[in-house]
Amino acid sequence: MPVLVMKFGGTSVATLDRIRRAAKRVGVEVSKGYDVIVIVSAMAGKTNELVGYVNETSPLYDAREYDAVVSSGENVTAGLMALTLQEMDVPARSWQGWQVPLITTSAHSAARIEDIPTDNINTKFAEGMRVAVVAGFQGISPDGRITTLGRGGSDTTAVAFAAAFEAERCDIYTDVDGVYTTDPRIASKARKLDKIAFEEMLELASLGAKVLQTRSVELAMRYNVKLRVLSSFEEQSDDAGTLVCAEEEIMESNVVSGIAYSRDEAKMTLVSVADRPGIAAAIFGPLSDAGVNVDMIIQNIAEEGRTDMTFSCPTDQVKRAEKALLDARTNGEINYHDLIADTDVAKISAVGIGMRSQSGVAAKMFKTLSDEGVNIKVIATSEIKISVLVDRKYMELAVQALHDVFELDKTA
Amino acid sequence: MPVLVMKFGGTSVATLDRIRRAAKRVGVEVSKGYDVIVIVSAMAGKTNELVGYVNETSPLYDAREYDAVVSSGENVTAGLMALTLQEMDVPARSWQGWQVPLITTSAHSAARIEDIPTDNINTKFAEGMRVAVVAGFQGISPDGRITTLGRGGSDTTAVAFAAAFEAERCDIYTDVDGVYTTDPRIASKARKLDKIAFEEMLELASLGAKVLQTRSVELAMRYNVKLRVLSSFEEQSDDAGTLVCAEEEIMESNVVSGIAYSRDEAKMTLVSVADRPGIAAAIFGPLSDAGVNVDMIIQNIAEEGRTDMTFSCPTDQVKRAEKALLDARTNGEINYHDLIADTDVAKISAVGIGMRSQSGVAAKMFKTLSDEGVNIKVIATSEIKISVLVDRKYMELAVQALHDVFELDKTA
Repeated sequence: MPVLVMKFGGTSVATLDRIRRAAKRVGVEVSKGYDVIVIVSAMAGKTNELVGYVNETSPLYDAREYDAVVSSGENVTAGLMALTLQEMDVPARSWQGWQVPLITTSAHSAARIEDIPTDNINTKFAEGMRVAVVAGFQGISPDGRITTLGRGGSDTTAVAFAAAFEAERCDIYTDVDGVYTTDPRIASKARKLDKIAFEEMLELASLGAKVLQTRSVELAMRYNVKLRVLSSFEEQSDDAGTLVCAEEEIMESNVVSGIAYSRDEAKMTLVSVADRPGIAAAIFGPLSDAGVNVDMIIQNIAEEGRTDMTFSCPTDQVKRAEKALLDARTNGEINYHDLIADTDVAKISAVGIGMRSQSGVAAKMFKTLSDEGVNIKVIATSEIKISVLVDRKYMELAVQALHDVFELDKTA
Repeated sequence: MPVLVMKFGGTSVATLDRIRRAAKRVGVEVSKGYDVIVIVSAMAGKTNELVGYVNETSPLYDAREYDAVVSSGENVTAGLMALTLQEMDVPARSWQGWQVPLITTSAHSAARIEDIPTDNINTKFAEGMRVAVVAGFQGISPDGRITTLGRGGSDTTAVAFAAAFEAERCDIYTDVDGVYTTDPRIASKARKLDKIAFEEMLELASLGAKVLQTRSVELAMRYNVKLRVLSSFEEQSDDAGTLVCAEEEIMESNVVSGIAYSRDEAKMTLVSVADRPGIAAAIFGPLSDAGVNVDMIIQNIAEEGRTDMTFSCPTDQVKRAEKALLDARTNGEINYHDLIADTDVAKISAVGIGMRSQSGVAAKMFKTLSDEGVNIKVIATSEIKISVLVDRKYMELAVQALHDVFELDKTA
C-alpha cells in the first residue's frame, strides 16, 4: 500500500481532545488506503518544561543527559496517539526513536539523521498494522544513547521518514493553514499559496517565516519529498494547505512568490577601514569565530586606500560582533575609524523562482520603495531573492507596497 | 569497589531541590568508596498524570502502549539525577531500562524481571563512572517493547539490581524513616524497628503497611539482599532507618514484632450452605474467577448437613463477590439460605517470627481483646501471624491494647 507521512506539531497534540482530532485525520487517510507513518511532537509546553528543568539543574549540561530528558515528551504523545487510533479500531502502535531505530550522529542536541532502516515498521505494515506512530525529534547514537535533532526536529524526522519509506507525500499539520505570500497580520491582502518551490520555501524559512524547520526543507529538496503544510484546526480537503515541491511541478507562478521580513536584523558599519588584499577575511574571520551570523555584506570605496564595510547580523549578536571587531583592532588585525551599529532597521525580501527568467524585478522593487519615500540602506541579491535593509518604521509600508506591486493577491 | 544500590521514591525526587538533596546523599556514599546504582521513581504525581491520560484516552488500553507512556516519568528523573551528580563532580550517567537492558517477561504493566546483564554498567564503573542512575519501574520485553513492573515497581527494580550486582546493601529512601511496630498515628508508643525479618516484612507489607512493594521483599528474601528503609528527609547516620534482613541476622527480637491493621476488609457470611464434599471449591472457585481476593476463611457446622461459611475480602470487592455467589446459586452450583456482608469490620494482625518458638501468643492476644470488651468475629493464623476481624469501632483500641501487652514500645 502507498505510504503517507503525517506530522503533528505540539499545538496539534496539546490536549487529549486535539490528539483525538488528529487521530481522526489519520483515520481518513487510512480509509483511503494509505499505510500511515505519524510523527508526533510533545504536547505543547512539555519540551520547554523539560528544558527548563535541565537548565536549572545544570547550566552547562551534559548534552547526552539533556537529550535523555527532553526526548521524553514525544514518547508520551506517541503512546497516546497509538491508543487513540486503536480506540477508533485503526491498528496502530508507537515507536520510540531507538525502537525504529532512527540512527543519528553522536552530535547530541543537534544530531543529524544517518539511517532509518525500514524493516521493522514494514514488517508490521505487512502484518496488518496501518499506522506507525513515531516519536519525533529523537534518535539513537551509534553507542546506544538517545539523541535529539534540535528544536523543530520533528519536521526533519517526518521528511526523513517520507524519504526512507518513499512516501507519496509528507503532510505537516501545524497551527497555520499554509504558506502565505506575506504575513497576513501586516498585509491584509496576503494570500495562501497553493504551491511553493523548495528553493523559495528555503529562502522564506531562513528569512523568518517559521512554518517549517529549514533542515526539513533542505532534506525534502534533496530527496524530492512532496511536503504539504496545512492546519490541524480546520476541515481539510485533498488540496488544502500549501504544497512545497520541486519547481517543475509548479506550472505557472508569479515572478515573486512572497515578501518576507525580519525585525531582528541589525546593520553594522565599519567606517574607513584600511583597505588591502585580504581585508574581508580579516574582518569576517573573527566574526565567524565569535559565532556571529553575518547575512548581507557590502563594501563602498570611501577614499583612496580606505573603504567602508557594512554588514547585517541578528540584533542579539551585535554585542558579540562589536567585541570581536574591537579585539581584532586591538590585535592589529584590522584598522578602522569607527564602528556604527544601527539596530533600528528591518530586512525586506522578495522571493521567487520566476526572477531567474524575468529581468527588471530589482528595478521595480527599488522604484516602488523610492515612490513610497523609503530609503534603502543595504541591498543584497541572490538568484531568487532580493533583500533590502530599511528603517524599521517603514517595514509595514514596504511590505504592503511590494505585495501590491507584484500583485501577490492575484494568482498567476 | 563494593556496590551500593540506593532507591529514591517519587516524593524524594518530587522537585529539583529534592533531587539535589538525594544526590548529596549519593555523593556521601560515593565518597565512602562505593560504586553506586541509583534507582529513581518519577517525580511525585507524574505517573498518576500519565496514567490519567491513558485511562481517559482508552479505558481498555493496550498495555504495551500504557507501558510506553507511563514509563516516561522515570526517564526524566534519571537524566536530571545524573546531571545533578555531574554538577557535584560525581561521574554519573543515566540508563533507561532498555539501555541496561533490564529484560522482563512480556506481561505488560505487570512484567517480571528475567535478567539484568551487568556488563554495560560494570564496564562504565571500570572506566571511572561512579554512579549509574537507572530509571526504575521499567524494562524491555523479549520483542523489544517497553514494559513496566506494576505500581511500586521501582522497589523491585532496586532489589533486582542489588541481587544482580551483589550489592552490599539496598537502601530504599522514602518519606517515612523506617518500619514501625505499628502505625504511630494510632498508637503513640509505636517504635521504629532497627531490624525486621523478611518474613515479618512480607506479612506487614501485605497487611497494608505500605512501605515496600511486597514483590521487592520476596525478591530480597530469595537473594538475601539486605534492604534498608530510611527517610530522604532527615540527616542519616549509618544505622538509620530499618534493616530488613534474614532472620539469622536478628540476634534478639520480641515475640511479636508489629501490629498491623486494615480498614478495607469486609466479612461475608454464607448462611446455611448445603454441605457436601467439594463445597469449598464450589464456593471459592467462582469467587476466584470473579477476581475476588479472599483472605480469611472459616467454616462452622451449623446443623446436620448444612454449614455456615465465612470469609473476608477487600471492601471494594464485596459487590463482585455477591454477584459471583448469586450466579453460582442460580446455576445450582451451590445452595445457601442467606448471604450477609459486614463491611463495618477491621482486621488486626500480630506478626512476629518469635511466635514460632513461643507458645501462648494467640491466647494472650485473645485474652487482651476480651479484657477490653472487643468481640472477635473471625480468627486466622499462620506460622508467624495471628489475624482477627473485629468491629471497626474497636480497631484503635485493639491496636493499642495489643501494642501494650506485647511490649512493643520496648526493645528486646
